[in-house]
Amino acid sequence: MTTNEKALMLHKEWNGKLDTAPKCEVKSREDLALAYTPGVAEPCKVIAKDTEAAYEYTIKANTVAVVSDGSAVLGLGNIGPHAAMPVMEGKAVLFKEFGNVNAFPICLDTQDTEEIIKTVVNIAPAFGGINLEDISAPRCFEIEERLKELLDIPVFHDDQHGTAIVVLAGIINALKVVGKDKETCNVVVNGAGSAGIAITKLLLNYGFKNIVMCDKVGILSKETKDLNWMQQKMMDTTNLTGKTGTLADALKGADIFVGVSAPNIVTKEMVASMNKDAIIFAMANPDPEILPNLAKEAGARIVGTGRSDFPNQVNNVVAFPGIFKGALEGRATQITEEMKLAAALAIAGLVKDEDLNENNILPEAFHPDVARVVSEAVKSHIK
Amino acid sequence: MTTNEKALMLHKEWNGKLDTAPKCEVKSREDLALAYTPGVAEPCKVIAKDTEAAYEYTIKANTVAVVSDGSAVLGLGNIGPHAAMPVMEGKAVLFKEFGNVNAFPICLDTQDTEEIIKTVVNIAPAFGGINLEDISAPRCFEIEERLKELLDIPVFHDDQHGTAIVVLAGIINALKVVGKDKETCNVVVNGAGSAGIAITKLLLNYGFKNIVMCDKVGILSKETKDLNWMQQKMMDTTNLTGKTGTLADALKGADIFVGVSAPNIVTKEMVASMNKDAIIFAMANPDPEILPNLAKEAGARIVGTGRSDFPNQVNNVVAFPGIFKGALEGRATQITEEMKLAAALAIAGLVKDEDLNENNILPEAFHPDVARVVSEAVKSHIK
Repeated sequence: MTTNEKALMLHKEWNGKLDTAPKCEVKSREDLALAYTPGVAEPCKVIAKDTEAAYEYTIKANTVAVVSDGSAVLGLGNIGPHAAMPVMEGKAVLFKEFGNVNAFPICLDTQDTEEIIKTVVNIAPAFGGINLEDISAPRCFEIEERLKELLDIPVFHDDQHGTAIVVLAGIINALKVVGKDKETCNVVVNGAGSAGIAITKLLLNYGFKNIVMCDKVGILSKETKDLNWMQQKMMDTTNLTGKTGTLADALKGADIFVGVSAPNIVTKEMVASMNKDAIIFAMANPDPEILPNLAKEAGARIVGTGRSDFPNQVNNVVAFPGIFKGALEGRATQITEEMKLAAALAIAGLVKDEDLNENNILPEAFHPDVARVVSEAVKSHIK
Repeated sequence: MTTNEKALMLHKEWNGKLDTAPKCEVKSREDLALAYTPGVAEPCKVIAKDTEAAYEYTIKANTVAVVSDGSAVLGLGNIGPHAAMPVMEGKAVLFKEFGNVNAFPICLDTQDTEEIIKTVVNIAPAFGGINLEDISAPRCFEIEERLKELLDIPVFHDDQHGTAIVVLAGIINALKVVGKDKETCNVVVNGAGSAGIAITKLLLNYGFKNIVMCDKVGILSKETKDLNWMQQKMMDTTNLTGKTGTLADALKGADIFVGVSAPNIVTKEMVASMNKDAIIFAMANPDPEILPNLAKEAGARIVGTGRSDFPNQVNNVVAFPGIFKGALEGRATQITEEMKLAAALAIAGLVKDEDLNENNILPEAFHPDVARVVSEAVKSHIK
């Protein structure tokens, strides 16, 4: 039986991957009077006087909504809210297993930006944080920005920021291995959707200076037609020399390639045209932009992918559980840029110097300290 | 320490009464590949082809949303969504403990009817049923009716129908004890809000003919001013002789009093003016419309209240867990009138004839068979 066949069979057996688990017993009339009426009126009255008390008396303290409209699910595209559920349930499972954070999947039967925003605002009282997931670009940017303005709980689009944080962590360690400096590296980010843009922003915030974004049309510049508003905005801080041309043109003399695009679109020739000690993050699903062995043959020094069967897996699970754990424990109202940078540094720091090498730049998903270390990094940046 | 003090202390200790509990282990890379990427894509693809498969592969199979806008919470009134959370969490706990149904609290940061309807429709994909809770009348009627039209999953306002079902169950058994016939009984329902109206409707559907509704203004008739649209509608089927006057006037010659109104508003004189073998359901919170001992002294034969420290407690917990359990297991798209009547009869039937007496007309909340028996009654009426 293949992994896929087994996964389908197991999903049928599970019949939903998440149960609820009461934290209080209800075995007697007295239990009922304490957990429900009449006793329950007491915490209600306290919260009615001061909404902040919700963090003391309700699940808001440690519960995240995993919100998707099913518009950009995995590599499957716009499959809608019902079909997105197994992914969001899986995400909720990972929140619990890796961060001991309760999470509940909310899949929305609308793909209208305004309706999504209103709905999330309306359901926010139960939750201490909102994890947006698999919402297509550029709507995801507006939805996240508006929700951050409207809500006083952290809102975090994991496809953007989770990915960006782990890529940055990997690049921090990769630069240590190859001995290059962030300020002089030429970076090419291929794929100008939610992940590509967020990665670019975080790399810029970390101190990279020279980043060129590419998409299906090739290099993106101020002259590129049909850019969405967010891509246009990115042209203020990327491709400052006004390059034009194809991805192959972009890669000539580049030090780092970050792909969140499509399988097998990078050739050995392109890699060979990059600078010495090239760093490749080829994260397309299910197959990378270039297979690690081909990239290495063409001269790349370090190759990471999204897959667990190759070295240097870029896996968001090392980031989001700890990030929300820290944000909830520290009662953060936002996940700030400082927290993201701190999380990336913390993740990078989990690979000890003596263990650091071409094939080991990122901690394992199951590294026992990762959620704690990331949560502490996040908490230390809460104002 | 009083029950209330203990309840507050425990709620702080619990810090939210509900955890999530993964049904799948994630301890290895293989687990991750099965429960999350890449394996999770398989059930997604199946559901994308056929939405119905969500019942096989996702939590929709056995998960209910407990939805409130916090506008009419317990006896506390309009305390808002944050303060309503302990009640909705408690309800979710009872769903799990009594019916093994997963339920999640959704407290809405809006009290606008249209927004509530849209929000619930938008979040419906994750859920197999919607339990509306503590939403004020008359908005609750429109919200429930519209949601029933818009959604293909059961929508059930427990304050209305749960209460009505348990009251009917109690009345069925009370009539057996006193040997009266539903068709000739005069019934007075005091309190023309959500519960009072739903009780009246269900009693009419069961076969009662003569029901008079009262409210703060006294007897409701077609001439009463300021009735809301639902109360007006009720005048087509109640008070057919056009009575007017006070609650005291209504009770003269009545056989059954059902109170969902305010503490201590029924006097011994009023009870004494009722017919012989009067049946009293005095369910006001926290104190009943008349205390059982006073009602008995005035000649009432059977008295039920909402309280667990008096005999004949009317407790919704004998209804809603089994109702949703049956609806979910049988994949009902609605909770119909037939199901409600069947549930009431099933609950009444749990008190064996030999155990039936003035002080034992309803099963205990902790009766071990109640959820199963109610769920089977509901399932047998799914078309």
